[in-house]
Amino acid sequence: MRIADFKDTAGAFCPHGRFGLQGAATGLLSGRTFAVKDFIDIEGHVTGCGNPRWLETHAPATATAPCVTTLLAAGATMIGKTISDELAYSLNGDNFHYGTPVNAAAPDRVPGGSSSGSASAVSAGLCDFALGTDSGGSVRIPASYCGLYGIRTTHGLLSLDGVVPFMPSLDVLGWFARDAALFAAVGELLLPPAKTRPPLRRLMRSLDADGEADSTTLDRLAPGFAALARRLGNTTPIRIAPDGLEKWRIQFRLLSAVETWAVNGAWIEQAKPVFGPAIAERFAFAREVSGRDLSAERDARARIGQRLRDIVGNDGVICLPTAPGPAPLRTATGEAVEAFRQRAQRMTCISGLSGLPQISMPAATVDGAPVGLSLIGPPGSDLDLLALAVELEGAIRPSESATSR
Amino acid sequence: MRIADFKDTAGAFCPHGRFGLQGAATGLLSGRTFAVKDFIDIEGHVTGCGNPRWLETHAPATATAPCVTTLLAAGATMIGKTISDELAYSLNGDNFHYGTPVNAAAPDRVPGGSSSGSASAVSAGLCDFALGTDSGGSVRIPASYCGLYGIRTTHGLLSLDGVVPFMPSLDVLGWFARDAALFAAVGELLLPPAKTRPPLRRLMRSLDADGEADSTTLDRLAPGFAALARRLGNTTPIRIAPDGLEKWRIQFRLLSAVETWAVNGAWIEQAKPVFGPAIAERFAFAREVSGRDLSAERDARARIGQRLRDIVGNDGVICLPTAPGPAPLRTATGEAVEAFRQRAQRMTCISGLSGLPQISMPAATVDGAPVGLSLIGPPGSDLDLLALAVELEGAIRPSESATSR
Repeated sequence: MRIADFKDTAGAFCPHGRFGLQGAATGLLSGRTFAVKDFIDIEGHVTGCGNPRWLETHAPATATAPCVTTLLAAGATMIGKTISDELAYSLNGDNFHYGTPVNAAAPDRVPGGSSSGSASAVSAGLCDFALGTDSGGSVRIPASYCGLYGIRTTHGLLSLDGVVPFMPSLDVLGWFARDAALFAAVGELLLPPAKTRPPLRRLMRSLDADGEADSTTLDRLAPGFAALARRLGNTTPIRIAPDGLEKWRIQFRLLSAVETWAVNGAWIEQAKPVFGPAIAERFAFAREVSGRDLSAERDARARIGQRLRDIVGNDGVICLPTAPGPAPLRTATGEAVEAFRQRAQRMTCISGLSGLPQISMPAATVDGAPVGLSLIGPPGSDLDLLALAVELEGAIRPSESATSR
Repeated sequence: MRIADFKDTAGAFCPHGRFGLQGAATGLLSGRTFAVKDFIDIEGHVTGCGNPRWLETHAPATATAPCVTTLLAAGATMIGKTISDELAYSLNGDNFHYGTPVNAAAPDRVPGGSSSGSASAVSAGLCDFALGTDSGGSVRIPASYCGLYGIRTTHGLLSLDGVVPFMPSLDVLGWFARDAALFAAVGELLLPPAKTRPPLRRLMRSLDADGEADSTTLDRLAPGFAALARRLGNTTPIRIAPDGLEKWRIQFRLLSAVETWAVNGAWIEQAKPVFGPAIAERFAFAREVSGRDLSAERDARARIGQRLRDIVGNDGVICLPTAPGPAPLRTATGEAVEAFRQRAQRMTCISGLSGLPQISMPAATVDGAPVGLSLIGPPGSDLDLLALAVELEGAIRPSESATSR
């Protein structure tokens, strides 16, 4: 039997991504399987970025991304490449061309995106873990929606060789897993060896991020917040954005649009791809703002980064709900989805704009659908955050009976 | 809004097939919409044949197939290209790479194939009619499973310019529609003008085809058979294959394998595509038998064709259940699906091997899922069969209350 010769019950894999790569016989991840977001290169295969026209107009990759070769060398077997939102420009996970991968933890809801297929494949048990990328929440949001562990790594910490750039000042690698031990083990392999750092010990809670979340979601996350406080000491309430997270979101929106147009605009003008309606609208906006002088915005962004680094120092950690609530229903209208996305962006832009690492942990369910609890740490504290996830798994994770619907 | 800018709720369209072509302002089909199986060329687009590697290794078509241009000129608007089984080599409709399009008439069941996406799109109301191809049942079977009208045209009657060849001595064009009037109107446009023929008046019923069908299916089709008899006079029971339909199926299987390897074998050896498990097995068989001397089989086939033409003469029509029963469940095991497919092939190979035209009409439901009633007519009687479908629609079609589940 070929490695990729399984039934894709979740609709998580790209049509052109049904191939596998056998991992080394021994290693830390021996016997484990993983999937790769179709933004990450595999030698000899075209990386499709969620759009069929992209697939059609690009040549096969000439090398495999180092993150993938590292995992293979550690014994993990790659079973296929997963669907993403088009050019990673969405948080929803409903690709117009390739369909909406199944959120196995809440089948009537979207999986979240843009690393939708990776989250879907792990949620459905098709593989043990999966690689994604996160520019504006593309790992954290699907992790929260699908009841998985997910990490956005410190910006610049991991090589993006072999990863298609989308918004270079925002793009990072991340991954999903169902359990904390494997979630952390992948980090041990991919992340640089831990530097000596003071332990994370100052817990802060973002009141402004809380303000974006549904009240039921906050209620259900209360035991998780309490478990964090038991482990890390008293919680200090803070306000992250003195001028409001909506300003930060607008900042993020403009910056991401200008960057993605700088990277993809020429191709879009030349190849004239068909995009799904929401993505087409977003690229129309990106095109419109593409010429704009962003020096004021870049200054503001630098101040945001500095403010966040000051807040966390070298031992602080900020906790917040990963998303406003559980995933939108698959049947939700475009308008409702867009409103929800904007609230989510006000929460995800915090580590996006500042480059700080963030993990999302499955922590509760609302109406039977998962919601995640996030931790944002100092730059380079990725391994410490992963260790916290392992330590806290029993205390934070909803019990089986609580999650059963 | 672009023509193809709709939500593909059925997962019926290819990722690379989300584009439209506006029909002429006036014409017989003005205001109607249609979809095209991704075996039929549209200028400037690669025809994908249900396999991503095929898509990757073929150039865009340099002309649009005449069947499509005819429909566009008659005012119909093309809304996209639909998923098919890989290289059309299945009757099931579960594409390993692109997923299983939804059978809107029985969502827990497969749509049937290989023209799966075309049937799915029409069943879901995404368009008014759709083009397919039929070599071994690829229009008739999905028509039966999805509760649609479907036709396999007389072999050689319609040009296959711009249609990717699969099994040249068996391939024909066909189409699906929800109502008989449109079903016939498409025929008026695509088929050559009617020659003067004697009216169809001798009704025969195939006892050996009946023998392949489930008894419940036969029971439910009884009113349909009775309506046919009221219109065409007494029914003469006949045995089509004196030596048994299984011998014919084996004949069909060998012939189709040798032909498809002759057409596609070189590409398969060179491009090394990944196939889903069932398709891979079938091509392995095709490769194995590819060198074989088939002169005896070709003689036998000629005798089969002659026998069928003798049976129908110029005014006879054979009625039979289109398939052994309703579509297999999406969750059915490979083994069960394969056994069912072999029974279906014993029924579909009759017109396949003889080149006679066959229509399938929605006629009953079993466990709430559609089953079709078929008519096989003399060579070139396609328009007469379509006219019969229109005439009999009220008498044969299950009433709304009977089909509601």
